[in-house]
Amino acid sequence: MQRKLHLHNFKQEYTPRFKTLVQCVVPVFLLLHTSFSTPPGSSAVLEPLFQYIDEHNNEFIQRLAEWVAVQSESADPAKWGEVEKMLNMTAERIRGMGGSVELADVGPQQLASGEMAPVPPVLLAEFSRDPEKATLCIYGHVDVQPARTEDGWSTSPFNLTDLLGNLYGRGATDNKGPVLAWLHAVEAYQAAKQEIPLNLKFIIEGTEEVGSYGLLELTRKRNDSFFADVDYIVISDNVWTTRNPALTYGTRGNSYFFVEVDGPKLDLHSGVYGGSIHEPMSDLIALLGSLVHHTGKILIPGITDDVAPLTDTERNIYQNISFDLEEMKRVVGVKHFLQDTREEVLMARWRYPCLSIHGIEGAFSELGMKTIIPRRVIGKFSIRQVSNMNPHDVERKAEEHLKLVFSRLRSPNRLTVSAAVGAKPWVAKLSDPQYFAGKKAIKNVFGVEPELIREGSTIPIAQDFHEVTGKSVMMLPIGGHDDGEHSQNEKISRYNFIEGTKLFAAYIHELSQL
Amino acid sequence: MQRKLHLHNFKQEYTPRFKTLVQCVVPVFLLLHTSFSTPPGSSAVLEPLFQYIDEHNNEFIQRLAEWVAVQSESADPAKWGEVEKMLNMTAERIRGMGGSVELADVGPQQLASGEMAPVPPVLLAEFSRDPEKATLCIYGHVDVQPARTEDGWSTSPFNLTDLLGNLYGRGATDNKGPVLAWLHAVEAYQAAKQEIPLNLKFIIEGTEEVGSYGLLELTRKRNDSFFADVDYIVISDNVWTTRNPALTYGTRGNSYFFVEVDGPKLDLHSGVYGGSIHEPMSDLIALLGSLVHHTGKILIPGITDDVAPLTDTERNIYQNISFDLEEMKRVVGVKHFLQDTREEVLMARWRYPCLSIHGIEGAFSELGMKTIIPRRVIGKFSIRQVSNMNPHDVERKAEEHLKLVFSRLRSPNRLTVSAAVGAKPWVAKLSDPQYFAGKKAIKNVFGVEPELIREGSTIPIAQDFHEVTGKSVMMLPIGGHDDGEHSQNEKISRYNFIEGTKLFAAYIHELSQL
Repeated sequence: MQRKLHLHNFKQEYTPRFKTLVQCVVPVFLLLHTSFSTPPGSSAVLEPLFQYIDEHNNEFIQRLAEWVAVQSESADPAKWGEVEKMLNMTAERIRGMGGSVELADVGPQQLASGEMAPVPPVLLAEFSRDPEKATLCIYGHVDVQPARTEDGWSTSPFNLTDLLGNLYGRGATDNKGPVLAWLHAVEAYQAAKQEIPLNLKFIIEGTEEVGSYGLLELTRKRNDSFFADVDYIVISDNVWTTRNPALTYGTRGNSYFFVEVDGPKLDLHSGVYGGSIHEPMSDLIALLGSLVHHTGKILIPGITDDVAPLTDTERNIYQNISFDLEEMKRVVGVKHFLQDTREEVLMARWRYPCLSIHGIEGAFSELGMKTIIPRRVIGKFSIRQVSNMNPHDVERKAEEHLKLVFSRLRSPNRLTVSAAVGAKPWVAKLSDPQYFAGKKAIKNVFGVEPELIREGSTIPIAQDFHEVTGKSVMMLPIGGHDDGEHSQNEKISRYNFIEGTKLFAAYIHELSQL
Repeated sequence: MQRKLHLHNFKQEYTPRFKTLVQCVVPVFLLLHTSFSTPPGSSAVLEPLFQYIDEHNNEFIQRLAEWVAVQSESADPAKWGEVEKMLNMTAERIRGMGGSVELADVGPQQLASGEMAPVPPVLLAEFSRDPEKATLCIYGHVDVQPARTEDGWSTSPFNLTDLLGNLYGRGATDNKGPVLAWLHAVEAYQAAKQEIPLNLKFIIEGTEEVGSYGLLELTRKRNDSFFADVDYIVISDNVWTTRNPALTYGTRGNSYFFVEVDGPKLDLHSGVYGGSIHEPMSDLIALLGSLVHHTGKILIPGITDDVAPLTDTERNIYQNISFDLEEMKRVVGVKHFLQDTREEVLMARWRYPCLSIHGIEGAFSELGMKTIIPRRVIGKFSIRQVSNMNPHDVERKAEEHLKLVFSRLRSPNRLTVSAAVGAKPWVAKLSDPQYFAGKKAIKNVFGVEPELIREGSTIPIAQDFHEVTGKSVMMLPIGGHDDGEHSQNEKISRYNFIEGTKLFAAYIHELSQL
C-alpha cells in the first residue's frame, strides 16, 4: 500500500524525472526489494514512518526552502549574523521537537583583517538519555559556500527551485538538506508515535566551509561530557560516487605547501635585466618540476613508503563499484586517465596519495603580456595523504627534498617552504557495527547493496572525531553524485531528499537492532 | 663668463642636488673640459645658444610643467582626447616657431572591447627645406604611461614638482621632457639668430606607450615623401645606464610566447580527482622547466646559433663603461648576478639573448589556499633576441622544442604554442656619422666621452625606421639612469633637462659639420 502510494506520488510530482528513475532505479529497486526481504519487525516499524515521510514530502521541501533562503555564508564574517540565524532556526526546530539545545561558545577567531571576531556557536543537542539505549551523535553544518547569480547560476541561488524533480539552491545538498532529513526522520518517529530506539545527539556547526572554527577544541573539551555516552558518530556531509547509494569509509588527508622564492628587492624589467638575474620564477619552476612525474608518481624520496598495502578484501570492494570509466571520461572531458582500469582510477583517487600543483602567487597571471621578472613568487601544491602516512613526516620529506633541489640551482635567492592544513587521512573499519546497520538500512530503502566508497578529498572532522573521542565514525551520504556541492547550480533531487529521510529513519532502527 | 653664470645659476637653483653633482659630475666636467677643447667655430656658435638656454631654464621648466599637466595616457582610449590635446599643443608650439605641421591620420584601431576607434594622429613637421643642408628627423612621443597618486607617488603625478633639483611628474623623462628639449634647442638657435645648420623634421606620436598604432604603416606610406630627403633619424626616448652621458647603438628584439595546455572540460577538485588526471599544470611546469638552465643558458636547441660573435672592438666598448657591479647589486638587491664580471653582466643584458618566464594565466594566483586542478593554463615567457637572430626562426625553434617535450609527457591534454611581438633587434654601426657627431656634442656639453651603450629592452621603432627607410638611426638619450620611466615618481633632473637641451643644440651643430 505504502509502496503504491509512494509510486503514485512519485508519478504526480516527479513526472519528468520519473521516466529516468523508472528506467534506472525503480526496476532495480522493485526487483531487489523482493529478493532482500527485511525482518518483519523492521517492516512493521518502518512502513508507518515511510508513509509519514511520503505524505509530508512537500512540507519537508518547503522547510528546506526556508532554510536555503537564509544566506548563511560563513566565508564572509559580515554574514555571520545569517549563520547565527540559521543556527537559531535549527535550535528552535529541535526544541520544538522536544530536544534540549546548547549553543556552545567557541570563542573568537582572528580574521584576515587581523581583527578578532566572535565565531558563531556550535549547536549541541540531545533528545533523550536512556541508559538502556545506544547513543548516536549526528554531525552536520548549516553554513554554506558563497553563491551569486552572476557566477553562472541558472536559478536564484537562495530561492529553492524545483526543476524536473531537482531542488536547486545553495546548501540544498551541502549540508542543509541532509541536516533537515535527519530532523525529519526524528519527526516521522514522533508523528508515527514510535519510540526512537536510540538516544540521539546532534552537533551542528556554522563554519564548516571555512575550516570548522573551534570545533576540534570543543570536541576535546566536551569529550568527557557531551561525547562520553556517545557510541556512534554519523556524518552525512558528502555525496554518492555513482547513481547508487553509498557508505563512505575513508577520506584522504592533506598537506598544503607554499614554496616561496624571494629574489631581487623589486620587480625587474625583463628586457633591461633578463640574462643577468637568477630569476625567482626559474628557480620555482625547477622546484615545482621536481615534485611529480608525468605518470603521476610523486618524486619526493620516501614519500610513499608508509602507504598501507592493498589487501584482497579491498581489491574486492573496488571491483564491486559500478563506476563507469567511459562515462567519467565524458563527464570530466579527458581522453584518458593516468590509469587504464576503473579499479586503478578509483584507487588513485581514494587510496593512494597524489600531488597537485595549484598555481603561483606573485607572478604575472593576468590576460595578455607583461615583461616582468617577478621579485618574489610562491608556488602552491598539495599532497593528499592516505593511511598510514603521517602529515608531519610528509611535510618534512617535502621540505628536505625542495631544499636539496634548490641547493643545486646555486641561486642567490631565498627559499622558504611552509605547510598548512596537515589533516590526517581517515579510514574506518568496515567491520564496525555502523556499517552493518548502514548496509541493512540502504537495502531496506533502496533495495540494493550500498557501494563502499572513500572520498579522495579531505573531511578532517571524521578523523578528528575518531581521534579525540575514540568512537566509531561513519559517513552516510544521501546527496547524488551530480549534486554540484560548492559549484553553481547546487541541488539535491526530491528523490534523494525524501528517500534519504527514509534512509535515516531506517538507519536509526537498524542501528538499534545490533 | 657663460660657464660662470651657469655655475652660479646652478648653485642657486640646484642647491641640494648641487652637492652631489659637484662631487660626481662637475669636477669631471671641469677637468675634462679643459683637455678636450672644441673647435673655435663650434664654441662661437654654441656659447650664445648655451647662454640662452641657461637664462631661460625656468621658462623651459614652466613649459614642461604645462605639458606634464595634460593627462595624455594612451592606455585608456577614453583619454585619447587628452593625447590629441597634447599633439595640438606640440603642433602649435612648432607652428609658432615657424615650422609647418601635418597631423597625419593613421586610421582606426580595434580596442579590447572589439570596438573600432579613431587613433590620435601622428605629427609630421619640418622647419626648412634647404637642399644644401643635411636633414635630421627627430622622433618623440607625447603620450604617457598611466599614473595615479594611490599607486605610490610621493607627488601629484600630473603636477610637475621640483624636489632637490629633480622634476617629478609623469612624462617628465618619457618622453615630454626630451621632446621639449629638442624644441627648446631650436628656439635657442632662433633666439640667438643663428641659422639652423640642418633641415629639421619632427615625427611625434601619441600612442608609443601602447605600441605605436599605425606608425610603421605611416612610415612605409611616407617613405618616398616625408622620409625621402631625411639623412639621419634620432630618437631620444631612453635613458643613460650610469651617471655618465651615453649614446645608444643597439636594442634587443623580443618574442613573447603563450604556452597553453588545455585539459579537462572544467576545473577539478584536487582531492576528488588528484592522482587520476594528467594535470595541465604539471604538463606546463615540465614545459617551462625545459626552457632555461639555472645558469641562464637557453635550452631550446639551436636557438643561439645565429648570435653575432663578439669582436675585439665590442669587448673594448664594454671595458670602458663605468658600470659599478657592486652598486648594481645593491640597487637590484641581489647577492650575485649570473655572471661574475661587470663586462659579462652588461653583455648578458645587452648583446646576448635571454629567456624569462613571466607567469601563468589560469592557475590559482591569489593569496591563500585553493585545492584546484586548473583545467587550462597558459605559461608566458619571452625571448630577447640579438643580432643576427631572426624572430621567426626563434619562434619556430621554440615551438618545435615545446612540442617535442610535450610529446614525451604522453598527456591527453592539448598544447597550443603561440608567439606575439616578434620585434627584431637593432644594432647601429658605430662608424655612422651620427655617432661621431653625438660623441663631439657630448664632449662639448659634458666634457666627457660618452658611454656607448645598448638597451636590453626592445624599442621596435629604431629597427622599424632603419628597415623601412634605410636611413641612419641613433638614440641620443638625455634622461638619467634613475629617472624611473614607467614607474612611480618618474622624474627628470633640472640638470639633465637643461644640459640635455644644450646637448641637442650642440648635436645639430656637430652633425652639420660632418
